[in-house]
Amino acid sequence: MILHEDPRSGNCYKIRLTAAFLGIPLDFRSYDVMKAETRTPEFLAEVNSNGRIPVLQDGDRFLPESNAACFYLADGSPLIPADPFERADMLRWMFWEQYNHEPNVATVRFWIAFIGEDSLNDVQRLLLPMKREQGNAALALMDRHLAEQDWFVGRRMSLADIALYAYTHVAGDGGFELGNYRHVCGWMERLSSQPGHVAMNRETPLAVKGPSD
Amino acid sequence: MILHEDPRSGNCYKIRLTAAFLGIPLDFRSYDVMKAETRTPEFLAEVNSNGRIPVLQDGDRFLPESNAACFYLADGSPLIPADPFERADMLRWMFWEQYNHEPNVATVRFWIAFIGEDSLNDVQRLLLPMKREQGNAALALMDRHLAEQDWFVGRRMSLADIALYAYTHVAGDGGFELGNYRHVCGWMERLSSQPGHVAMNRETPLAVKGPSD
Repeated sequence: MILHEDPRSGNCYKIRLTAAFLGIPLDFRSYDVMKAETRTPEFLAEVNSNGRIPVLQDGDRFLPESNAACFYLADGSPLIPADPFERADMLRWMFWEQYNHEPNVATVRFWIAFIGEDSLNDVQRLLLPMKREQGNAALALMDRHLAEQDWFVGRRMSLADIALYAYTHVAGDGGFELGNYRHVCGWMERLSSQPGHVAMNRETPLAVKGPSD
Repeated sequence: MILHEDPRSGNCYKIRLTAAFLGIPLDFRSYDVMKAETRTPEFLAEVNSNGRIPVLQDGDRFLPESNAACFYLADGSPLIPADPFERADMLRWMFWEQYNHEPNVATVRFWIAFIGEDSLNDVQRLLLPMKREQGNAALALMDRHLAEQDWFVGRRMSLADIALYAYTHVAGDGGFELGNYRHVCGWMERLSSQPGHVAMNRETPLAVKGPSD
């Protein structure tokens, strides 16, 4: 299987991390989203007509959407609960991640660490305070949930934890103060000490350039 | 099982429609989102701390997120493909619906038919053209996909079709011209003629009041 990715993207990292926990080997094709390499005619025709990564390729079949790709890799494994309610509850957190968490926590990170606060356009500048507030609301909701239990669903790590970990653990890149969410911090430590865990490539373009460039 | 819902919401209708196709009886508790009835202390404490509907209740367990609730109802039924790739591909379209379709097609409908274009705030007014454009891009992507096949995944109706149908078939309430997407129109006719189909309560507050009030 081949993962079409930008290694700095949390959505791509979710799939890489799921495969690592399960011991599934993947090949990688890298694209630079800052250079619009996923909007070329070839990419749109052959990989994803939606112009987005990640896409998981299995033979001649292509699967976009990070959480769907994680589900495909983990289907039948202990990363997906066997109990029907818990399985649906895992998906609940994954849909919540895409609707309430990613558009705020990940978008703010992209704007601050990849585009740069001084380079935002007028719409982005207007939306930034609201997205910061909603990102903090998402982190606070996670913190309240994790005050009661070690993992998002049931008593063991599932895809819900992997999906939420991906952009949470690099939320500091976007200026979020993770130290304010101590149950989230404990959960991140638990997850990163699970056997098979691999780290994300956190080098953002702005971090590579450095603040003085 | 009890569905906590606002009957005018497409996200709630998805669950109602899934249950109808499967012949599963549901009880209903109605809330008026225009009166913030899902933000009361009782709702936040007892039903969903995220302050949103729909929530599917099974005994003393509560399941938010529309697509997760549909998955719970349909688990083990023919509405979820048995083939692992097709099952993940179904989830791919459901995640795409929540990330690319609902925030544009459903949000524009809410702004136009529930709040009213003259009553939008400055941020909504600024975002409206972009959301219209992205909503049309989502409908166009669906149309290209449905030019090739009758259903979103495989050769029969699945939860992907139900999830995408819910806000697509009322997109006209938000000013989208569905007639521009003829493969989408054919697919909507196919879906609405399946045995068990039930209609949505389309009465929006503005439609109930009438344009002359």
